[in-house]
Amino acid sequence: MSAEIICVGTELLLGDILNSNAQYLAQQLAKLGIPHYYQTVVGDNPQRLKQVIEIAAARVKILIFTGGLGPTPDDLTCETIADFFGVPLVEDPEIIEDITEKFAQRGRVMSPSNRKQALIPQGAKVLPNPTGTAPGIIWQPRPGLTIFTFPGVPSELYPMWQETAVPFLKSQGWGEEIIHSRSLRFWGIGESTLAEKVSDYLNLLNPTVATYAGKGEVRLRVSAKASSETAAEALIAPIEQQLIEIAGLDYYGADDDNLASVVGKLLRELRETLSVAESCTGGGLGQMLTDISGSSDYFWGGVISYDNSVKVGLLGVNPEDLDKFGAVSAIVAEQMAIGVKNRLGTTWGLSITGIAGPTGGTNEKPVGLVYIGLAGPGSDVTSFEYRFGTIRGRSLIRHVSANAALDNLRRKLLTR
Amino acid sequence: MSAEIICVGTELLLGDILNSNAQYLAQQLAKLGIPHYYQTVVGDNPQRLKQVIEIAAARVKILIFTGGLGPTPDDLTCETIADFFGVPLVEDPEIIEDITEKFAQRGRVMSPSNRKQALIPQGAKVLPNPTGTAPGIIWQPRPGLTIFTFPGVPSELYPMWQETAVPFLKSQGWGEEIIHSRSLRFWGIGESTLAEKVSDYLNLLNPTVATYAGKGEVRLRVSAKASSETAAEALIAPIEQQLIEIAGLDYYGADDDNLASVVGKLLRELRETLSVAESCTGGGLGQMLTDISGSSDYFWGGVISYDNSVKVGLLGVNPEDLDKFGAVSAIVAEQMAIGVKNRLGTTWGLSITGIAGPTGGTNEKPVGLVYIGLAGPGSDVTSFEYRFGTIRGRSLIRHVSANAALDNLRRKLLTR
Repeated sequence: MSAEIICVGTELLLGDILNSNAQYLAQQLAKLGIPHYYQTVVGDNPQRLKQVIEIAAARVKILIFTGGLGPTPDDLTCETIADFFGVPLVEDPEIIEDITEKFAQRGRVMSPSNRKQALIPQGAKVLPNPTGTAPGIIWQPRPGLTIFTFPGVPSELYPMWQETAVPFLKSQGWGEEIIHSRSLRFWGIGESTLAEKVSDYLNLLNPTVATYAGKGEVRLRVSAKASSETAAEALIAPIEQQLIEIAGLDYYGADDDNLASVVGKLLRELRETLSVAESCTGGGLGQMLTDISGSSDYFWGGVISYDNSVKVGLLGVNPEDLDKFGAVSAIVAEQMAIGVKNRLGTTWGLSITGIAGPTGGTNEKPVGLVYIGLAGPGSDVTSFEYRFGTIRGRSLIRHVSANAALDNLRRKLLTR
Repeated sequence: MSAEIICVGTELLLGDILNSNAQYLAQQLAKLGIPHYYQTVVGDNPQRLKQVIEIAAARVKILIFTGGLGPTPDDLTCETIADFFGVPLVEDPEIIEDITEKFAQRGRVMSPSNRKQALIPQGAKVLPNPTGTAPGIIWQPRPGLTIFTFPGVPSELYPMWQETAVPFLKSQGWGEEIIHSRSLRFWGIGESTLAEKVSDYLNLLNPTVATYAGKGEVRLRVSAKASSETAAEALIAPIEQQLIEIAGLDYYGADDDNLASVVGKLLRELRETLSVAESCTGGGLGQMLTDISGSSDYFWGGVISYDNSVKVGLLGVNPEDLDKFGAVSAIVAEQMAIGVKNRLGTTWGLSITGIAGPTGGTNEKPVGLVYIGLAGPGSDVTSFEYRFGTIRGRSLIRHVSANAALDNLRRKLLTR
């Protein structure tokens, strides 16, 4: 018994909007343990929609539709479904009352086109819409096949799903076996290298382990099927521990952790503070750190030294070294880190200077060359050189630079 | 002759990632005038993927696959396609060479699992991947059916689409009737207000005009169907001019413009310079400004004054005013703007101080209260108060705060 998500809307085929409903529903189905093997997108076209229904009804038992429930003539989902199963539409008086009331609340009168939204297939139950005018339906057009319809507007879909679809599905026995996952996060190791290190685990059946790569980091997803979240966690925990041990320092956190939150947690525990000096990232490192609510406990601020005059004036970088070694150099990175640490009076100073491109590179100092400076307690200062290459583009070079800076601080905090 | 987008990946079915590839490809197909009526998502499962291929090959002429080209055992797209059409996989020596070289550039050795990425169906052409190791294919497994495969990583898919798929499709005669669009961007006006102002235009047929809202801004999409981009632009231009005139100063740019790029263009023309002082945005304003390559011409840097000691020490904010009015106040915003302007010696100083939440709000100063300070030539200084409310969340409050700061500078530069 599995489900298919069918999103109806020409705007999806034109690429006007991102299909976030499919992602939301996919997550929700996984949570309830309802297997879901297909998603289909089709336009506001009755013939093609009927073909999609025919294919889906032959391969799954639950069809979940989003979109096409609005008041305009191209909103055809409900009538096409009814037509496919040869069932007439009937006007539901409660829906008429609900729509009239909602319009009255907004000081408006129901337009005739909204009357269309009260038509549902004979025998279907109304799925109330607490926030909008378009209700959905729950319908069994034939034994063993259940149809849900939802509006395409996410802010209407979410509460309808939670308040009516979830209780209904649970009453049908769903949610007794669930899929629960943990996402383990790694920095400083490539996907294929990590996959080889943990290759024995990639063939497990429960929990399963799979690798994902994106934006400079690698993730391992550990997913367990069990009767409850607690039971799933008990299956995941020992495997998670083993994977973390194998990866060593390259593992930095799980699920919603990111390098900024992990570094923040370490600094808070140590009661130490941080300031930053940013050149090519232009504030991006500070932004990452302050994305974390409560970061003011350990992050005091910094200097965006985009122009060399700021490096000299505010950070005390030696103008002769700037001339001799250039702004993108290990010595300038170190002086920036020392400068911001001393200037702001923090435990740590972390700096970034580099060439994010696409212009500004030379043979000797190509685009993607980045230096990270890290100044710590006492006169301890180090720097790290990276060559990210040109192919990643400006935005990704800046993103991985800021993360590489945080990762160096993380490793230092864990190993000093 | 139409196309179907088939996205392969269990992570899509689990809701781990948003299907942005489907949106990108949908936009690209629309641009070339290639009709596209279906999108299908299926997991890394050979049986189900074969069923999907069978359905799609019966209803369209172009199949575009994304995902499942990686080096790990669950990446099965290419071999499943070959298997479906009964054609063996062969190792392509040029791909082996390309992968080896890419690994060498990063100072690494090709792992045995990457060798799998060089296997393509006999008779298929390689679609080179300039940025990653997984190449795609262009293949006609039978007359009248063309298959494209792309990796699932967007930063690899985009250049492959532009550099190889587009020229190929154009050589096949596509792109003769195209849909071309301009996206006009507005800040400081709500979607419904703008829709009412331009209501006459929303019923046009060619070009069409539609409103979109997102992340604090509103867009009008003007789309024309014509034989060429130039012909479409000729249809769009007069409508665009009229819309811009109706909107006045609320219009700020089109297409890839953003408030940082528009402000940057104005500053460059005026030969003026900017520095920033950021509290609640923590570097986000600097990051937006430096996302623009070449921003060093007018953006000199700034101070992230997250802690009050930095506001006093580096920006010269009066500690008594900090005590009396609090860090989130008009007077502190103004002193921050003056301080950073004087300290860095720029024409303009722009500051942000506010409560991004979710904690830290009071009855008098709720979450979402933000002050922008703007100091200009001479002793000119002003501040602006915003109440963004709590429902937008920390990340969006920070985003709209930085944009509101840029918008105030933009209006000042245009009207002083």
